Amino acid sequence: MSKENVTREENYSQWYNDIVIKADLAETSAVRGCMVIKPYGYAIWEKIQRQLDDMFKETGHVNAYFPLFIPKSFLSKEAAHIEGFAKECAVVTHYRLKTDESGKGVIVDPEAKLEEELIIRPTSETIIWNTYKGWIQSYRDLPLLVNQWANVVRWEMRTRLFLRTAEFLWQEGHTAHATSEEAIEETLKMLNVYSEFAEEYMAMPVIKGVKTANERFAGAVDTYCIEALMQDGKALQAGTSHFLGQNFAKAFDVKFTGKDGKLDYVWATSWGVSTRLMGALIMMHSDDKGLVLPPKLAPFQVVIVPIYRGDEELNLVSEFSLKIQKELKRKGISVKFDNRDTYKPGYKFAEHEYRGVPVRIAVGPRDVANSTVEVARRDTLEKEVLQVIDLPEKISHLLEQIQKNLYDRALERREQNTNQADSWEEFCELLDNKGGFIYAHWDGTSETEEKIKELTKATIRCIPLNNKKESGLCVYSGKPSAERVLFARAY
Amino acid sequence: MSKENVTREENYSQWYNDIVIKADLAETSAVRGCMVIKPYGYAIWEKIQRQLDDMFKETGHVNAYFPLFIPKSFLSKEAAHIEGFAKECAVVTHYRLKTDESGKGVIVDPEAKLEEELIIRPTSETIIWNTYKGWIQSYRDLPLLVNQWANVVRWEMRTRLFLRTAEFLWQEGHTAHATSEEAIEETLKMLNVYSEFAEEYMAMPVIKGVKTANERFAGAVDTYCIEALMQDGKALQAGTSHFLGQNFAKAFDVKFTGKDGKLDYVWATSWGVSTRLMGALIMMHSDDKGLVLPPKLAPFQVVIVPIYRGDEELNLVSEFSLKIQKELKRKGISVKFDNRDTYKPGYKFAEHEYRGVPVRIAVGPRDVANSTVEVARRDTLEKEVLQVIDLPEKISHLLEQIQKNLYDRALERREQNTNQADSWEEFCELLDNKGGFIYAHWDGTSETEEKIKELTKATIRCIPLNNKKESGLCVYSGKPSAERVLFARAY
Repeated sequence: MSKENVTREENYSQWYNDIVIKADLAETSAVRGCMVIKPYGYAIWEKIQRQLDDMFKETGHVNAYFPLFIPKSFLSKEAAHIEGFAKECAVVTHYRLKTDESGKGVIVDPEAKLEEELIIRPTSETIIWNTYKGWIQSYRDLPLLVNQWANVVRWEMRTRLFLRTAEFLWQEGHTAHATSEEAIEETLKMLNVYSEFAEEYMAMPVIKGVKTANERFAGAVDTYCIEALMQDGKALQAGTSHFLGQNFAKAFDVKFTGKDGKLDYVWATSWGVSTRLMGALIMMHSDDKGLVLPPKLAPFQVVIVPIYRGDEELNLVSEFSLKIQKELKRKGISVKFDNRDTYKPGYKFAEHEYRGVPVRIAVGPRDVANSTVEVARRDTLEKEVLQVIDLPEKISHLLEQIQKNLYDRALERREQNTNQADSWEEFCELLDNKGGFIYAHWDGTSETEEKIKELTKATIRCIPLNNKKESGLCVYSGKPSAERVLFARAY
Repeated sequence: MSKENVTREENYSQWYNDIVIKADLAETSAVRGCMVIKPYGYAIWEKIQRQLDDMFKETGHVNAYFPLFIPKSFLSKEAAHIEGFAKECAVVTHYRLKTDESGKGVIVDPEAKLEEELIIRPTSETIIWNTYKGWIQSYRDLPLLVNQWANVVRWEMRTRLFLRTAEFLWQEGHTAHATSEEAIEETLKMLNVYSEFAEEYMAMPVIKGVKTANERFAGAVDTYCIEALMQDGKALQAGTSHFLGQNFAKAFDVKFTGKDGKLDYVWATSWGVSTRLMGALIMMHSDDKGLVLPPKLAPFQVVIVPIYRGDEELNLVSEFSLKIQKELKRKGISVKFDNRDTYKPGYKFAEHEYRGVPVRIAVGPRDVANSTVEVARRDTLEKEVLQVIDLPEKISHLLEQIQKNLYDRALERREQNTNQADSWEEFCELLDNKGGFIYAHWDGTSETEEKIKELTKATIRCIPLNNKKESGLCVYSGKPSAERVLFARAY
């Protein structure tokens, strides 16, 4: 908790890394590109998981588990999938070690070579659709609404904690439907679940849209996404929902008999969010004093720090604090009583502030005498003295306020950093001097999109849903365009 | 749901496999030895997870996540660990695929060879203790009480769904302590958590004990276990808790400064249960009519099946059923209203019976008229007609009764199949004709233990905790023995 935190202005990237490390969220491991998610970081992920899982179940989904391994040949069954998908995968070639004869230690047993190599799943469409072939015969087996919580591996060369790691945790929904309409409806339903989760729980405003062909998931007919804007003006794709058409059903020969007795291929969707959301959450709200967490995802919403000298004061203050803890818990508020005797109050204040605990309550002997406490909120750093009798209601209300304030602040920041560009000069100038989201006209071709990316590193984040129709000229090519699309440099 | 189910007597092993497959719990996958856990099976696993996770947290533990991969060299750092541990592991040697130039499809890129091979974790002591080195400096960092929910891979040659698969899901607790006493206390505390879970939730009586040196976890000082007896008279190890001494701390050089300022190695434990518990659960209670689930772990405890002809009766019966569902839910009972119009009641009855739903309620138009329903319990197959007004209380009570009955039945079966053997002939005869647990004297040597295993396939399951001291002669060698140990053939 050194006082010399690097600020966002000084070095945004260092600021982010410092928070991840010093707030005990995650760290790099001995394995290149793989992270260790530390208990405090994992507790936030568990909150995210639990809430999303509840939302998936409320919308009729069930969980299942499919193998970690994918036979190499499966990957090439859906042509666009293997073409478009990064080939940086972890490949298992052997299944046994043996003691090294020339000394201690172990070596890979050359005799234990697999006939066909296995790939650690980078995503599970192939193994799942190969399985669905056995599960689906008739319309009575549809829809199939399955989700999986799992680890996946993509051998990224440049990794950053949470944002891009070789191994990451995620959920992947894989659904099967009798009609195209139903599958599209599902794709959009899950996009809405994601945006609702982002906005209501992460306090993170997002823009819903559809990807251009270039940015589409390999094997999808359409990829929908939610896009958020970080404090450094870069965009972050926070979740995707794919309408897969009949592509995987055809690749794995999954047909069903309809009510009319006719045989047809099944329609598919897939959708996922990952531990990348942790990166978005950290960048969205934190400040130069460290992590800031929205109350709905904080491992504990309130921390009580006792201030005392000697055992007598400790007993007095503890009894008082435990009563407050109990009252707050009764209101459904999660409260930690930090009674560690190995650290001083000042250290604890700094630690909880840096770790983003939404509300801190300090309790000293004078508070006990006056039936008051000092309450500090993390988002605005404001403090006030409250009567103990009012605490349950006031803290409850304060947590709601903090949740709302974080969202409002993030929305305001996004609005301030969203602009329109009507010429190439304006487009480049905005990107270089301001960053943020840029609404600009685009001629609809992949060539122009690629050229813009090459020249500016900006990509089309999405074509927003319910986009205003507005004719204009492409900022790059000057060709006609029917609507503006959303550009940004992105994570 | 064919009527020609194989019975336990006819073919126990086939009976087990049939239940796993036909009750939609799991199936084999396209990857050798790996299973797909189907939604109904996974829902049971989720119940197991949730309950255990709550119990871990109540005892002060937190969750974290460590890498899937373990650098090969880590495995040989703790000598006994690599010696004793099976070397059948999945080995990652490459990190990229490339398009095959001679045609379509992909091949492993020979240029993307890892400098050091990575092993898919078969268990995580090594990577975790390598991480703990950075987390532990002083007594203030202890105890460290961490658990991980994860997938692990052991390349088993002979696999069986749930009981022994190449990939399986589990939790592994890894704790660090300042003293030996505290670590041993933790080891036993978690053994008790496991036995409490097994008996109270799985309705599965277990024997707690300590393993002999032969059966100890590789790298442990002592391995404690819970052992259960299956219906075919074979034992199943359902969970283990290891006191690791300072072995891993020494291997990874993890020291801490004590309150007295002295430097010492940290003391460790690890403990785990896996999806193997699913296999135990299935075998423990099921009968020739299929799966039988204890109410506390059933995905839904009650199913309501409507019986009707035509829309008018359907509406009548549905309204009545939904009211019952609501009343039962208010009592905390999970209830599925099976209103699928694609299947007939008879099919549904058979399906839910085979899938082990604890209580079935059938509702027809006459029931609506009489304000009654027919209630059938899965464990005894008894039916009775109940007044709707009494349902919430009676069903609540019935579920408790079923939970208790399953435990009592299992305990009685175990007692009937537990014997003492006082001679080698008696020992062999019991094993061949009766199976079950056998309490017998053993001379305490590994040689005798191995010889007995070689001759009879029976192993020492454990030396029960609080074992009665009773001197006698070893059934095999005739040498003196101070207590009986627990033998059985095992899964």
